Amino acid sequence: MASRTLHVTVPDDSWLTALDDVDGVELSVWDMSTPQPDHHVDLAVRPYTVAAAGLDALDPDRLDVIQSQALGFDGVAETLPDGITYCNAVGVHEESTAELAVALLLASQREIDRYAREVGQWNRGFTASLIDRRILLLGAGGIGRELERRLDGFGAELVRVASTARQDDRGTIHGQDELPDLLPTVDAVLLAVPLTDSTTGLVDDDFLASLPDGAIVVNVSRGKVVDTDAVVRQGGRVRLAADVTDPEPLPPEHPLWTTPGVLISPHVGGMSSAMRPRIEAVVRRQIALLRDGQRPADVVIG
Amino acid sequence: MASRTLHVTVPDDSWLTALDDVDGVELSVWDMSTPQPDHHVDLAVRPYTVAAAGLDALDPDRLDVIQSQALGFDGVAETLPDGITYCNAVGVHEESTAELAVALLLASQREIDRYAREVGQWNRGFTASLIDRRILLLGAGGIGRELERRLDGFGAELVRVASTARQDDRGTIHGQDELPDLLPTVDAVLLAVPLTDSTTGLVDDDFLASLPDGAIVVNVSRGKVVDTDAVVRQGGRVRLAADVTDPEPLPPEHPLWTTPGVLISPHVGGMSSAMRPRIEAVVRRQIALLRDGQRPADVVIG
Repeated sequence: MASRTLHVTVPDDSWLTALDDVDGVELSVWDMSTPQPDHHVDLAVRPYTVAAAGLDALDPDRLDVIQSQALGFDGVAETLPDGITYCNAVGVHEESTAELAVALLLASQREIDRYAREVGQWNRGFTASLIDRRILLLGAGGIGRELERRLDGFGAELVRVASTARQDDRGTIHGQDELPDLLPTVDAVLLAVPLTDSTTGLVDDDFLASLPDGAIVVNVSRGKVVDTDAVVRQGGRVRLAADVTDPEPLPPEHPLWTTPGVLISPHVGGMSSAMRPRIEAVVRRQIALLRDGQRPADVVIG
Repeated sequence: MASRTLHVTVPDDSWLTALDDVDGVELSVWDMSTPQPDHHVDLAVRPYTVAAAGLDALDPDRLDVIQSQALGFDGVAETLPDGITYCNAVGVHEESTAELAVALLLASQREIDRYAREVGQWNRGFTASLIDRRILLLGAGGIGRELERRLDGFGAELVRVASTARQDDRGTIHGQDELPDLLPTVDAVLLAVPLTDSTTGLVDDDFLASLPDGAIVVNVSRGKVVDTDAVVRQGGRVRLAADVTDPEPLPPEHPLWTTPGVLISPHVGGMSSAMRPRIEAVVRRQIALLRDGQRPADVVIG
């Protein structure tokens, strides 16, 4: 059974080489910042970090499916024209983002950030650790599962929380409504939730006030899950290690940069050597599905 | 069966409170920087970080056992008078040191040290990761095992090496003589070996030259396992994250501080919140053994 040739656009030349062994595909470069091609496009791979032109200008008669290289898709549904299918990048960033969360957590606990700044100084002292500590993991999705795997060996007790209470093969997952009782009992909170109405501004003055002195919040979800002003206001009693901020990028003069106990990375959770082989595998799988006349995987809109 | 009262010295007042529920013990404070007590001491707990006076001045007629709070004991055998038993601190620092090694490794791979220095800047870019990488773990002792546990969830392939080749329940441990073949194949080397004749200066020009571009060496063993000058000479082609250095402390003007790709912590592997409960448990166990007329545990000299 012969399948028709697909028209696939990719965001830069490197993809032409990466996919040159894929049969039945006509590849062209379109980074979505220039006008849409005149011909019909079956699948457009969206750029990862380059700002793309507004999705609202796209013509659905000439574009079937957009494959995003990101996991998050907040804001897309509001602008994407009807008739275009949007797929997010599942299995591409979860491991890398969980790794960065653990890197930020460990760096903060063991004060690697201070040592990095104190070049030439030999200031020994005791620090916090993960050993014997209670870590609250908020979010039971892909990043949450990868966090569990990575934290297993660190001698900490994991307290898992998701939107609703349930059991899985590893035991109890608490519901988000139990947070007021749980927060005073933990030393660290890892945020790995999507941005929804119930997670926007979740880490506010009350949330922070419920945590013990010296506790740490690690945010690798979305900046708006944390109320930035509340973190600045409480001034270091609770620490923050964040890969995402609100606003983002965080302006150079923003007081969060110099709030005591705050460590910030510039939204690089997925930006590691692990990404490219995984997103290429996703695109290959989507091409295979479309060539077989099937619906693409990981459709989040359309 | 009544056991006799033991005389135990502790290095500071905090220990008097910590051990005040232990029966059959007379506690006094001696930090080993002042003259030895006139009375007989059954067990002296050595200070952890305060420089103690030379062990060679101790009178073995009035001191039976020294409990060190450290795991390493290089140099002790050369100065300790005959007749005094010396115990190292097993089970106290391994977890914490392994945790720091992973913290240093992750911070270097994901460039947390750079973000910590670039306060106010939002410089995104791709970094290395542990995912899909090969990590050579040199040393199959207590720290090595704790490293294995912690690295298990990170999606890396572990290549284990010890002084001699063997099999254990997890598979193959390569012998140190296989390093020339293994080094070109790995992305990271974690050093968790004791300082011996065969590990002194192990990481020299040839060792570094055998590693691929961008590889990283993490040292949480002893500073002299790495030839500091060799690291400086190769100038960042291979990175180093080290909690121990040679010399130590590293002088402020030493070129290692500013060699590209070098991250240094000031020998704090064991200095975390995990230490105190563990060393207290060790001392309690030694007291129980001595009161029962048994030999103390973890004797390394005497």
